Amino acid sequence: MTQHPSLDKVLEAHQGGKIEINSKQSVKDKEDLAIVYTPGVAKVCQEIAEKPDKVNDLTIKKNTIAVFSDGSAILGLGDLGPEAALPVMEGKAMLFKALADVDAFPICIKGKSIDHIIEVAKAIEPTFGGFNLEDISAPRCFEIEKRLQEEVNVPVFHDDQHGTAVVTLAALYNSLRLTGKRIEDIKVVVAGAGAAGIACSKIFINAGVGNIIVCDRKGAIYEGRSEGMNPIKEELSKISNKNRETGSLSNVLIGADLFMGLSGPNLITVNDLKQMAKDPIIFAMSNPEPEIDPQIASPYVSVMATGRSDFPNQINNVLCFPGFFRGLLDAKAKKVTEKMKIEAAKAIADLISENELNKDYIIPDALDKRVAPAVANAVKKTVEESSLINV
Amino acid sequence: MTQHPSLDKVLEAHQGGKIEINSKQSVKDKEDLAIVYTPGVAKVCQEIAEKPDKVNDLTIKKNTIAVFSDGSAILGLGDLGPEAALPVMEGKAMLFKALADVDAFPICIKGKSIDHIIEVAKAIEPTFGGFNLEDISAPRCFEIEKRLQEEVNVPVFHDDQHGTAVVTLAALYNSLRLTGKRIEDIKVVVAGAGAAGIACSKIFINAGVGNIIVCDRKGAIYEGRSEGMNPIKEELSKISNKNRETGSLSNVLIGADLFMGLSGPNLITVNDLKQMAKDPIIFAMSNPEPEIDPQIASPYVSVMATGRSDFPNQINNVLCFPGFFRGLLDAKAKKVTEKMKIEAAKAIADLISENELNKDYIIPDALDKRVAPAVANAVKKTVEESSLINV
Repeated sequence: MTQHPSLDKVLEAHQGGKIEINSKQSVKDKEDLAIVYTPGVAKVCQEIAEKPDKVNDLTIKKNTIAVFSDGSAILGLGDLGPEAALPVMEGKAMLFKALADVDAFPICIKGKSIDHIIEVAKAIEPTFGGFNLEDISAPRCFEIEKRLQEEVNVPVFHDDQHGTAVVTLAALYNSLRLTGKRIEDIKVVVAGAGAAGIACSKIFINAGVGNIIVCDRKGAIYEGRSEGMNPIKEELSKISNKNRETGSLSNVLIGADLFMGLSGPNLITVNDLKQMAKDPIIFAMSNPEPEIDPQIASPYVSVMATGRSDFPNQINNVLCFPGFFRGLLDAKAKKVTEKMKIEAAKAIADLISENELNKDYIIPDALDKRVAPAVANAVKKTVEESSLINV
Repeated sequence: MTQHPSLDKVLEAHQGGKIEINSKQSVKDKEDLAIVYTPGVAKVCQEIAEKPDKVNDLTIKKNTIAVFSDGSAILGLGDLGPEAALPVMEGKAMLFKALADVDAFPICIKGKSIDHIIEVAKAIEPTFGGFNLEDISAPRCFEIEKRLQEEVNVPVFHDDQHGTAVVTLAALYNSLRLTGKRIEDIKVVVAGAGAAGIACSKIFINAGVGNIIVCDRKGAIYEGRSEGMNPIKEELSKISNKNRETGSLSNVLIGADLFMGLSGPNLITVNDLKQMAKDPIIFAMSNPEPEIDPQIASPYVSVMATGRSDFPNQINNVLCFPGFFRGLLDAKAKKVTEKMKIEAAKAIADLISENELNKDYIIPDALDKRVAPAVANAVKKTVEESSLINV
C-alpha cells in the first residue's frame, strides 16, 4: 500500500526542488574553459548561424524538452496557479530522465489567455526539442495543443490527453486479448468529456472501436443534442454514438462491453455492471476515488483497471510519455501523429506475453524498465516508415 | 597559450549539448514515486497554493535561474539569432554550477521587440529565482533590464553590463592600491558607449571616480553634444565629463590616469600612452584584439589588463556572475542594487593581499575557487544590512 506517504516525508523530499542542472563535462582549467566557453564556443555559434539545423546536434535542444504548464488544472486539484504546478513538473522531469534519459525542464507560466500561452511557447522554442504540455484546463488545452503544433517545428504532446489515451488503448488491446472480443464489435461507454475523456474516445475511434458513446453530466452526447454542448463535443458527436442513443449513463451502459471512467468517484453501481454485456471490462480511472470501488466491482467483471497504484492494472501515463519523447527526439520528429500513438499503445500491450496475461495483469508495471525503450522504438519506427512513404 | 583550441575538439565537446537535467533523488520503486510524484506531490502543490512563499523552499525556484538571451549580440559576433546563442548560454550554465552550485538553465528566445521579450520573461518568472540577461544588443538591453527588474519579483542582472562593471571596478581598486592613486583624483577615459562601456562608467562614478569621459566614434561625449546622441548617452553626459572636454579620444587622453577600452582593436598608440598622467593604467578589454597590444604597451604603463586569458590580469566576468547569483539566491534578494555590485568588486579585489599584489597580478585567476564564495558573501551581507536599515 503506497498511496499515502506522510506529509513530513513528502515535504522533506521536496526541499530545494527535485532536479538539478549539471555539466556533462568538467570545467577545471583554462583549457576546458577555452573549449566550452570563450573563445572556442564562438566557432559553435557561427556553425549554427551558418547551418541552422546544427542546433539539433551541437546544443541541448537535441535531448531537451519543456514540461510546460500554466497550472490551471493541476492533478485533480484545479487551478492552483503556475507556482503550485512546479512540483508536478519537476516530478515529471525526474521520470523523463530516469526512464528514458530525456532532459526535461519545467516551464510554469503566468497568464491564462490562449494567445499569450502560445506566444510564450513559440518564443522559447529555440531551446527545446519538444513540448510536453501538462495540467492545462479543458477546453483551452485542445486549442493550445492544436495551434502550437501548427506553429512550431518541434513535436507537441499534451500528456493529460495523449499520454492517457495511449496507455488506455494499451489496456484495451490486452482486455480484448483476454476476453476474446474484437475491437470493431464492442460497445464502449465513456464517462467524462474533459481532456482525457475526449482524447481516449478519439484514439479508440481511430483504433477501430465501432460504437462509442461519451457521457457528460447531462448524459449521452449525441448529434443534435442542444444542451451543454461546446465545439469539442459537437465535433465528437459527429464521429461517435452512431445509433444516437440518448439518456443517462446508466441507460446507455446497458449492453456495453467496456466502461471507461475519466470523471469522478462512485459514478456507477453493481446494478449497472449487471446490465452490461457478457465479460464486461471496467477502466475506472478517476483518482484517487475510482468511479466504482474495485473490490465491489471485481466479482461482476472480467477486467478491472484503475489509475491507482494499490490495485492491479494501473493505467499510468508514465508508461507512455518518457519513451514517447525518447522516440520523438531520436527520430528528430517535427510532429506527433495519431499513428505514433496507436503504435505506442500496441508496443506497451505486446510486452505482456500470452502466458503472463491475466485479469490482474493486462498492463505493465509503471516502472517496468522495458516499457520506455519499446515505446521509443514504436515511435521511431513510425517516423521512419512515414518518411519512406514521403520519399 | 589556451586561446585557440582546434575546431574538431570544440565541436566534439559540444555534441548533444553541454548540460543535462538530473534528479536529485532516486525514483526506483512505487514508494519513491508516491513521494516525488503522485499522490504525494499533491500535498506540496496545495502547500504552495496556500502559502505562495513556499515556492522558494519546496521547488527548484530556490536555486535555479534563467540565462536569458535573444541572441542579438552574441559575444563579439553580433546578431546570430537565439539558436546560435545556445552554446554560450550552456557554457554559462556550466560555470554557474561549477563555481557557485547555482542551477542555471538557458532560455534563448525568438522575437526582438522589447515588449515581447519582457512579456516572455515575466511569463516564465514562476520557475526561476532570478534572470541573468545575456548577449542582448544595446541600447535595447538597458530598457529590458530596467523594465524587467521593475516588473518581476526576482533579481535581474545583465551580465554584459554589470558583470563586466563589477570585475573592472575590482581591477580599478587594485590598480589604485598599486599606483597609490586615489579614486576621487583620477581622470578616466573610456572608449566605447555600448552596454559594457556605459555600465562600467556608471559604476566608476558611483564608486567615487571624480572625472570620467566616455568616447564613442565621434569622440568625447559631453553635455550639449548634438551629433550621434541617444537617451542613454544624454543621461551619461549629465553625470560625466565634468569639465566638458571635447575632441577625439587622443585629445581627451592627455593627462588621463586610466584608459578603459570596451570598443575595438588597435584604437590607441604608444604616443597616446606617453601623453597620459604618470603611472598610467590601461584596461584594454576588446576581445580577441585589445585596443593596444599588451606587449607594445607594457613598457609605458604601470598596469596593463585585458580580456584575454593569455595575458596577465584577465578581466573576466566569470569572476562575478556565479558568486553574485549565489549571494542573491541565498539572501532571497528581490532586486540587484548598486551597492551589491560595489561590495562584490571590493571582495574580488581584497582577495589579493598586499604581498601578492603586483603589476601582473591585480585580479584573481578566472577559476580561482575563492572568488565565488567571497562575492556571494559580499552580496548576502549587503542584503542583510539593507534589510536591517529598513526595519
